[in-house]
Amino acid sequence: MHSPEELRLGVETYLNELVLTSELGELRDAVRYSLLGGGKRIRPVLALATAEALEVDVDHMLAAACSLEFVHTFSLVHDDLPALDDDDLRRGQPSCHSRFGEAVAILAGDALLAEAMRLALSYEAPAVARELTTATLGMIGGQYIDITTSGDRDADGLVELHRLKTGKLLAAPVGCALAVAGVPERDQGPWREFATDLGLLFQIIDDVLDATGTAEQLGKTPGKDEAAGKVTYVTLHGIEHARYLADEVRSRVDDRLAILPADTSVLAEIVATIRERQA
Amino acid sequence: MHSPEELRLGVETYLNELVLTSELGELRDAVRYSLLGGGKRIRPVLALATAEALEVDVDHMLAAACSLEFVHTFSLVHDDLPALDDDDLRRGQPSCHSRFGEAVAILAGDALLAEAMRLALSYEAPAVARELTTATLGMIGGQYIDITTSGDRDADGLVELHRLKTGKLLAAPVGCALAVAGVPERDQGPWREFATDLGLLFQIIDDVLDATGTAEQLGKTPGKDEAAGKVTYVTLHGIEHARYLADEVRSRVDDRLAILPADTSVLAEIVATIRERQA
Repeated sequence: MHSPEELRLGVETYLNELVLTSELGELRDAVRYSLLGGGKRIRPVLALATAEALEVDVDHMLAAACSLEFVHTFSLVHDDLPALDDDDLRRGQPSCHSRFGEAVAILAGDALLAEAMRLALSYEAPAVARELTTATLGMIGGQYIDITTSGDRDADGLVELHRLKTGKLLAAPVGCALAVAGVPERDQGPWREFATDLGLLFQIIDDVLDATGTAEQLGKTPGKDEAAGKVTYVTLHGIEHARYLADEVRSRVDDRLAILPADTSVLAEIVATIRERQA
Repeated sequence: MHSPEELRLGVETYLNELVLTSELGELRDAVRYSLLGGGKRIRPVLALATAEALEVDVDHMLAAACSLEFVHTFSLVHDDLPALDDDDLRRGQPSCHSRFGEAVAILAGDALLAEAMRLALSYEAPAVARELTTATLGMIGGQYIDITTSGDRDADGLVELHRLKTGKLLAAPVGCALAVAGVPERDQGPWREFATDLGLLFQIIDDVLDATGTAEQLGKTPGKDEAAGKVTYVTLHGIEHARYLADEVRSRVDDRLAILPADTSVLAEIVATIRERQA
């Protein structure tokens, strides 16, 4: 088993050395700029750790794991566009459209999504690509809810938003690992429940950090949700109650993890990092 | 064998009845608006006609055929955006962003691409999805060339632009049909050469029509290429020589079609329509 940091370095190396489709021409510069901007690689690391827990070789999982980072980066590039969140700063650097212009950023996002599919389709069976596609569609649906209902959400609407926008792609690493490992559907339930709650935890903490973090910590503009009048866990419940909710989900994630029939020691380390993250 | 018109009606029915991913919510309205706006369905009809020539049942080919129309529509929705071609009119109707706003149009394009993948992944083997992904990546590369080199193209650059931007997705119907039919790679050459030249023919005629058609004929704003200072077959060679080039490619397409080892009578009808089209 590899440590989370070893897995993250494996992801960085793979992404750095990956040969993108030559027909994208110089658009590859904008794709690489967005992809290699120094994210935390939570999704691919989670995919690799789950794969190792399921006794799949890391090398065999890297393409699937990194396809998730491509989809994640696609969503960031399009979300940052002026017509959507209008964010000039991403991971502490100019966002893709600030650096390359809006037209190129739109196409770079499109290319990231299509390249993600190409990676997911490098497996003999289509199961990985199906997991990725389902997660992507859910995420896009969540993004649509986010831009159309920002001011008038209730608690249920907020859970649904997060289940889709953040949760789908944070559960997908586990789904992709199950697909590569060939785990039969009847045995997938506990894994997927763990993944779903981990996604929820991630988002509640995200809302708390957006309200309390600094630009330096976050690598992006903080306080944007509240400034935009968006309902979040913090604006809906207050910061103290949002922290309490986070603690509740934290212990549920621990329970889910404890019953998985595998060596989940590395997954537990990743969960701890998500629990305690400051950015 | 079905006539091109019967195949087109089959495509319309399939698209009309297709259940989109529920998690897209009301974004499905923008997806449907763009998809059901009355296109000519050249790509899916070509896919179905090729499938029938290869003795594949139309019903088995419909998902793959329509995945191409989804990708085509995705490209139109994003191309029409203000940051790209900035076109308010498409197929005689307000373009997606004119009707739903820019943010929703960006997400609708994303959803169209992801739904295309879902359709292509409904087959047991991943070959169809691979064809679609390769074509999509080439098309995005072509679109990038189009927006970054519009004024300073030579004849070679123009051929490369069209090979990617229009050609890839007009050759993909044949590639998808070969994939569904399970034609071995060694026997695919003549089919793919036919498809490539058909894509080139389509684009030359497109350039001629953009220079000579009316908004009513085209269902979109004519003369935009020249107004935008874009190099096209017409601006590069003049209208007469562009027509001459079109004739040359026409006869090459006929030659390619004649040597295909199948009943290509319906394909020949489709080629004739593309040759003579006024819109």
